[in-house]
Amino acid sequence: MVPHLITALTGPINELEARVLESMPAIERWFRLEWMEHTPPFYTSVDLRNAGFKLAPVDTDLFPRGFDHLTEDMLPLAVQAAMAAIEKICPEAKNLLLIPAASTSSFYLEHLSRLVQVFTLAGLNVRLGSLDPALEAPRKLVLPDGGELALEPLVRRRRRLGLAGFDPCTVLLNDDLAQGVPRTLRGLYEQYLLPPLHAGWGVRRMSRHFQSYEEVAKKFAKLLGMDPWLITPMTGSHGRVEAEGGQGLEALQAGADALLAKLRRKHKEYGIADKPYVVLKADDGGRGQGVVTLRDAAELAAPELRAQLFAGGASAREMLVQEGVPTHERINDAVAEPVVCMIDRYVVGGYYRVHAGRRADENLVAPGAAFVPLAFAQSHHLPRRGAKPGASPPNRFYMYGVIGRLAMLAAAYELEATDPDAESYE
Amino acid sequence: MVPHLITALTGPINELEARVLESMPAIERWFRLEWMEHTPPFYTSVDLRNAGFKLAPVDTDLFPRGFDHLTEDMLPLAVQAAMAAIEKICPEAKNLLLIPAASTSSFYLEHLSRLVQVFTLAGLNVRLGSLDPALEAPRKLVLPDGGELALEPLVRRRRRLGLAGFDPCTVLLNDDLAQGVPRTLRGLYEQYLLPPLHAGWGVRRMSRHFQSYEEVAKKFAKLLGMDPWLITPMTGSHGRVEAEGGQGLEALQAGADALLAKLRRKHKEYGIADKPYVVLKADDGGRGQGVVTLRDAAELAAPELRAQLFAGGASAREMLVQEGVPTHERINDAVAEPVVCMIDRYVVGGYYRVHAGRRADENLVAPGAAFVPLAFAQSHHLPRRGAKPGASPPNRFYMYGVIGRLAMLAAAYELEATDPDAESYE
Repeated sequence: MVPHLITALTGPINELEARVLESMPAIERWFRLEWMEHTPPFYTSVDLRNAGFKLAPVDTDLFPRGFDHLTEDMLPLAVQAAMAAIEKICPEAKNLLLIPAASTSSFYLEHLSRLVQVFTLAGLNVRLGSLDPALEAPRKLVLPDGGELALEPLVRRRRRLGLAGFDPCTVLLNDDLAQGVPRTLRGLYEQYLLPPLHAGWGVRRMSRHFQSYEEVAKKFAKLLGMDPWLITPMTGSHGRVEAEGGQGLEALQAGADALLAKLRRKHKEYGIADKPYVVLKADDGGRGQGVVTLRDAAELAAPELRAQLFAGGASAREMLVQEGVPTHERINDAVAEPVVCMIDRYVVGGYYRVHAGRRADENLVAPGAAFVPLAFAQSHHLPRRGAKPGASPPNRFYMYGVIGRLAMLAAAYELEATDPDAESYE
Repeated sequence: MVPHLITALTGPINELEARVLESMPAIERWFRLEWMEHTPPFYTSVDLRNAGFKLAPVDTDLFPRGFDHLTEDMLPLAVQAAMAAIEKICPEAKNLLLIPAASTSSFYLEHLSRLVQVFTLAGLNVRLGSLDPALEAPRKLVLPDGGELALEPLVRRRRRLGLAGFDPCTVLLNDDLAQGVPRTLRGLYEQYLLPPLHAGWGVRRMSRHFQSYEEVAKKFAKLLGMDPWLITPMTGSHGRVEAEGGQGLEALQAGADALLAKLRRKHKEYGIADKPYVVLKADDGGRGQGVVTLRDAAELAAPELRAQLFAGGASAREMLVQEGVPTHERINDAVAEPVVCMIDRYVVGGYYRVHAGRRADENLVAPGAAFVPLAFAQSHHLPRRGAKPGASPPNRFYMYGVIGRLAMLAAAYELEATDPDAESYE
């Protein structure tokens, strides 16, 4: 069933939807050719925001969560995509070692259980290994439905990682390595370690990702003959700011000011009545924590805003200034943003992150968020050609799947550019 | 929803189901490795028969029909598989030329419309070209739901085939070429013609297919440590028989006699109470026409049986003697046999062919057959590990998907062996 959506869709998005639909064969071909040159990340989720006047990705997660929100109906699609992914990487694979994040929240365990299910049904022996060096014996993880998973201590041999009696061909990380790369994961040249270590948030930077996204969006916009801004969150400067002494804050304020000026011109160009705003977000990921919204760069001088920026007691942060893209979608009065889930190059489903206590211009990744499987369920991201723009949820979801894949492609560009082991042919 | 099934499942099949389930990772890995060496046919459907004591493919169609019986829920799976197939063959493809069979029955048109839908949603411009040289202008095909398809005259250029103003990268045949290969399809070395011409029934032989199937089934049975007979229809001699003078009939009778003797031993070995029987079927396809059931080879001397063999006025036929595999599945009292549909290496769904007027040991491909989408619909061919053997339809369907894929793999072996353009490395 299609969830009850109220989307304030205005001109540009309907135009974009129409353009995307009529260009479907060209778009799919373009992706096929891009994937010949670039390797998609193993699995990805992308948060989107549909502002009515534009549709843009705001976060690309290479250690995705929330796969438990994919409906049962979409499971075969995820399994088939997982089969395709494995076949490319390691067709002779028998064993998959999945390394989860440290979280044991019931949400995360449900996600984990779904991942285990998908890769088991794709024909692999899946076991879970813990990055926690304190774990000395297998630990039972009890799922909300009463099921169980076993989390086992990792066993590092000279060049390989495994568990007691379990030697995997592929190691799949679901921990985002925000704390850096543990020694046990280094130097595994005999196994496939996915995503690669430089995809971890200890190394990865949002600013670098959005630089790649701009490149991808420009190419794509050229194909469709449209302004890339309609699918791109404009990204400004980035840098380190310190709580004590406020080092870096002036530069951040200047960056916000410059970006706001650009956005005002864009809004004027398109006749958008909404006042533009920018967000300050962690350049090194941070799972949505501490996002600050600014309508005027001068607000940054206010002590409350600084307190918000360094909430949680951080002494310094790497921050990025980015265009704030409001979400104009609602599910039963609650603000909603779509999340697109992908395995290999395939969209396998999606869901809405909804938050009743937040406004359209606020970050929804916050306690109190709820999740609604996307209407991908029924006939998924398959477009209905001929339907009136803005009137067909399947067509909107196809468009979401396209923008989600653009962000995934940007991550592929990004990981190539930041690969420390890449050979240079210059 | 799972259709209401009554399957007389006895020991061996439950054992097979249990063995298949517990070996799932080994099976999927085995397929992955086989597909590294062998190219799957572009699309395939396989008729299976579940006798309770054995489960075997009885027909492998390389120009499949009945894709209209795949439910809406399974459509995304078919589209994803089609994307994977196209990506491998011709990633730069824009245009797909689909050449349908001559049939304009409403069943066939619905199938055709589903094929067009799948490949359009996979991102191709799909148009239909007719093999009928009498067609001089586009002809409207009106679908049962009121929709329309346009069937256009083929335009043959020197080395390429297309339509007026339409130059495809890939030509997909859905006509089984039983009448031989039309000149317009020969010598197309610049385009992908799928399936290849030697897959047409003017060239292909059932006997050759089942020879490959035996090879595949033996390998697979070895992997699972079981008797390959449990998944193989035993195939006997084949040859040409003539209506006038009865040339070849004696040899056929001797072949049937020899096969019946073997089958009696097998039934004794397994303690199967059912009396074995053989079927005489067209070695060159024949879409199920004129299949004759024999419990005793001497029956072939009866004039009624000969009349049945040459029904339709054929003067000579190429016949194959094969073990008759009864189907012990029923849907609401009607005899049913599962059909598994595949695109590339992926099971994308299936359906039951049911016939209220036929017996368990008869051919169901006959006027009066009806079709019920397979319970693949809900959670598809994904097994439920831990369910009691014989008790879980998803587990049975996973097993059906495995046997369907074995027959598809056999077709891959067969097409390699019969390829007239294959280079010989001897």
